[in-house]
Amino acid sequence: MSFRDHIRLCNNYDPARVVPLIAGNDRIGLLRRDNAAALQRFPHVFAVEDDKARLLASGDAAVVSQAVEGVVDALVAENRVPKWRNETFDVAPRWGAPPVFRLDRGAVPFFGTRAYGVHLNGYIRERNELYLWVGRRAPDKRVAPNKLDNVVAGGIGNGHGVEETLLKEGEEEASIPTGLSKGAVPAGAVSYRMETSLGIRDDVLFVYDLDMPADFVPENRDGEIVRFELMPVAAVIERVRATEDFKFNVNLVLLDFALRHGVLRPDDPEYLEVATGLHRPLD
Amino acid sequence: MSFRDHIRLCNNYDPARVVPLIAGNDRIGLLRRDNAAALQRFPHVFAVEDDKARLLASGDAAVVSQAVEGVVDALVAENRVPKWRNETFDVAPRWGAPPVFRLDRGAVPFFGTRAYGVHLNGYIRERNELYLWVGRRAPDKRVAPNKLDNVVAGGIGNGHGVEETLLKEGEEEASIPTGLSKGAVPAGAVSYRMETSLGIRDDVLFVYDLDMPADFVPENRDGEIVRFELMPVAAVIERVRATEDFKFNVNLVLLDFALRHGVLRPDDPEYLEVATGLHRPLD
Repeated sequence: MSFRDHIRLCNNYDPARVVPLIAGNDRIGLLRRDNAAALQRFPHVFAVEDDKARLLASGDAAVVSQAVEGVVDALVAENRVPKWRNETFDVAPRWGAPPVFRLDRGAVPFFGTRAYGVHLNGYIRERNELYLWVGRRAPDKRVAPNKLDNVVAGGIGNGHGVEETLLKEGEEEASIPTGLSKGAVPAGAVSYRMETSLGIRDDVLFVYDLDMPADFVPENRDGEIVRFELMPVAAVIERVRATEDFKFNVNLVLLDFALRHGVLRPDDPEYLEVATGLHRPLD
Repeated sequence: MSFRDHIRLCNNYDPARVVPLIAGNDRIGLLRRDNAAALQRFPHVFAVEDDKARLLASGDAAVVSQAVEGVVDALVAENRVPKWRNETFDVAPRWGAPPVFRLDRGAVPFFGTRAYGVHLNGYIRERNELYLWVGRRAPDKRVAPNKLDNVVAGGIGNGHGVEETLLKEGEEEASIPTGLSKGAVPAGAVSYRMETSLGIRDDVLFVYDLDMPADFVPENRDGEIVRFELMPVAAVIERVRATEDFKFNVNLVLLDFALRHGVLRPDDPEYLEVATGLHRPLD
């Protein structure tokens, strides 16, 4: 592995394998061609053409969501979509725009709608050295079981804000009191577009840094993390470079952290690939 | 103006207006079609075809540089290239690769070869507020006269390293002792591709932050900056948002600084455009 391998893995998207999903005049998703073909069975909800698919269901978000839910039900029965996650994401042409509908998280890659998450780099500084709190994901996680993760990370469910999600996930995943996590500093976003077995992940991760008290030990409450460990950031980055121990997108968040804090330096042969590879422009 | 206007201005590159400049198997530049046509007069140095131009001169960097210098001489005489800057940049297929030739800085946009620079955000922190040192460029600067600038910024000339350039420019432009500027923290790179009247700027700016002593006042030595001023970073960013007072690419460096330090926050309507718009992937 190398840094660039992690970046490539998260950006393996090939536009030739995909058609846009259109609502009105806006693209709201990216359908792999096999997934688009599977929607032909639902002509009251989707019009599937050679070069695009169009959402036909209209009305307010609740009405459209119900129509799409019927489709997702059938896709789950066909095993094209994993079972319901019972957590819905807003689907909109861009961040901040009113949602066209809400979609169960499990169906998001099938439709290739953009998903937003929050990742927190929880660090301590001791004698000018940085250490990062790292979590080990539970073995029963659907995505990336047993992989290493940021101290807090979560998807932004419909109707929830960025900071609100950070505070909620901070409590559930790491028992971080909101009085502490409110001090987290927003530091940009990591973005990538990735084809997986299910479809397209078109992801934007809001990134925060939190300077944590040296005596605070994170503790998981929701069963998603089995163990936390404090690691020197230089060791974290060498592990990113050499292994796939971290969840695929967490590698990118950690590289962004290392860049911003001067842990990676311009004499690293991959410096510019990292500096220009973590922020796929949105379109 | 808005943040996105600054990003768009620096990324107004249109591939349809350009052909690649090829050396061996590598692209080393981007020639606007009118500039490519102007090279047809030099068939011993360049082979100009419909969809590309090829460097024919071969040999070591010194030999090729000399052949290209003859061409640049003629282009200067025709006013296609501004007069010699007497400072040369390495031309290479990618950062760190051996140079194919060296090119006078004034001719870089004509050939659209990638140029590298260093920008330093010199800041002080007082009562949890950040202030940035800002310079006013001299009225006789060829590029962006009278515009506001980072405290230190300079191109990386051939054979010089990133940190070496930072230290040298820090002394010349702002009288920063090298003992101080050695403490600057590398924080990534800003990249963009821009068409100007001269051709294509394909720029990569290495970015550093320097926490400056509160009692240090920068002083210019080389005549390139007429005045330095300490400004609250929030005021700097509002000035970026509303005006064109800063040099075109400095807006991007300042937005990157504001993002990394939590001065811009996710509730800003342009947050994601900024977070994903400052790091054009290299190709």
